[in-house]
Amino acid sequence: MTDRDNRHRQAMQRLKTHVDQRIASASEQRGQLLVFTGNGKGKTTAAWGTVTRALGYGFGVGVVQFIKGKWECGERQRLVEDPRLDVAIMSTGFTWETQNREADTQACQEVWQAAQRMLADSNVYLVVLDEITYMLKFGYLAIEDVMHALAERPAEQTVIVTGRNAHRQLLDAADTISEMQEVRHAFNAGLEARRGIDY
Amino acid sequence: MTDRDNRHRQAMQRLKTHVDQRIASASEQRGQLLVFTGNGKGKTTAAWGTVTRALGYGFGVGVVQFIKGKWECGERQRLVEDPRLDVAIMSTGFTWETQNREADTQACQEVWQAAQRMLADSNVYLVVLDEITYMLKFGYLAIEDVMHALAERPAEQTVIVTGRNAHRQLLDAADTISEMQEVRHAFNAGLEARRGIDY
Repeated sequence: MTDRDNRHRQAMQRLKTHVDQRIASASEQRGQLLVFTGNGKGKTTAAWGTVTRALGYGFGVGVVQFIKGKWECGERQRLVEDPRLDVAIMSTGFTWETQNREADTQACQEVWQAAQRMLADSNVYLVVLDEITYMLKFGYLAIEDVMHALAERPAEQTVIVTGRNAHRQLLDAADTISEMQEVRHAFNAGLEARRGIDY
Repeated sequence: MTDRDNRHRQAMQRLKTHVDQRIASASEQRGQLLVFTGNGKGKTTAAWGTVTRALGYGFGVGVVQFIKGKWECGERQRLVEDPRLDVAIMSTGFTWETQNREADTQACQEVWQAAQRMLADSNVYLVVLDEITYMLKFGYLAIEDVMHALAERPAEQTVIVTGRNAHRQLLDAADTISEMQEVRHAFNAGLEARRGIDY
């Protein structure tokens, strides 16, 4: 064994000891609240990756899409025939398309009813509240209602919240927060949004 | 219409104009290089979300998992029966488990052969090089080989690279870079990694 191999082996042994210790000390099991926020690409995409993952074990999953209404959505198309997946979609599309506060509030409240049913159902292992942060920001939905539904949900249920500018109370309650930071975005260099990649 | 509704409508009109202008100016269509990096949760998960999305339109997808070998992987289980999906997995598991530089280098080179085939195949619309950054960092794979394969790939093919500490040359070549920053992670608060959520 060369010196380099030996040094590598020792470094990996130290890393393994560290990782093993961390795994041993992480022993609490319960549903979690995850927040994917920030202005970069990957928030909704990571939520759908987790949906695919949970479905892979046969868990029930609920997805509520608060503003993607009118867009094509390849991941939904791929998974929607799965009987364990329940998807509720706000009907009015992006809010800057409709420009009607009253209609948007009503559409939001309707889809929030579906979200509440999922958040009360212990057969739903994972609930995704996609882009709900904007509903709170625009005042279509009250933060108190959301925090109440989250607090009362089944203990084994994990919830993922996505969207920019997540409300402080959501961040305070979160077990995991990842901030997707935009270092660079193809769109800004003139590249068109791409089917099967961006939507 | 109330004053508040009116102000909201005007703000949304300005936003719509801005978004429409940006969409109109983004007109170049080609495959892209996306890098999901940073120390936070969501890099591999966002890659799998994109895999699900691309499969939803019937595109061919190749995934190369460089270090996840021995782990369960719900998203792979969910999608692996899809004939349009090709998955290649490095056989040795995490490198700090094996602690053998020579064996890891060989295992890496074997799975890199599969990656090169995907990167040369114009029927593969999306290639994911999951956790390849560690292969470069540990010296199992040469950055020149990776950059060459990326440069020579079909023009319509998108590639996603995931992993911490992405190599400078990968970042320089990327069209989109998202840095998943760990603001908080449940693991550090003693919560066990969760089936269907974390793996």
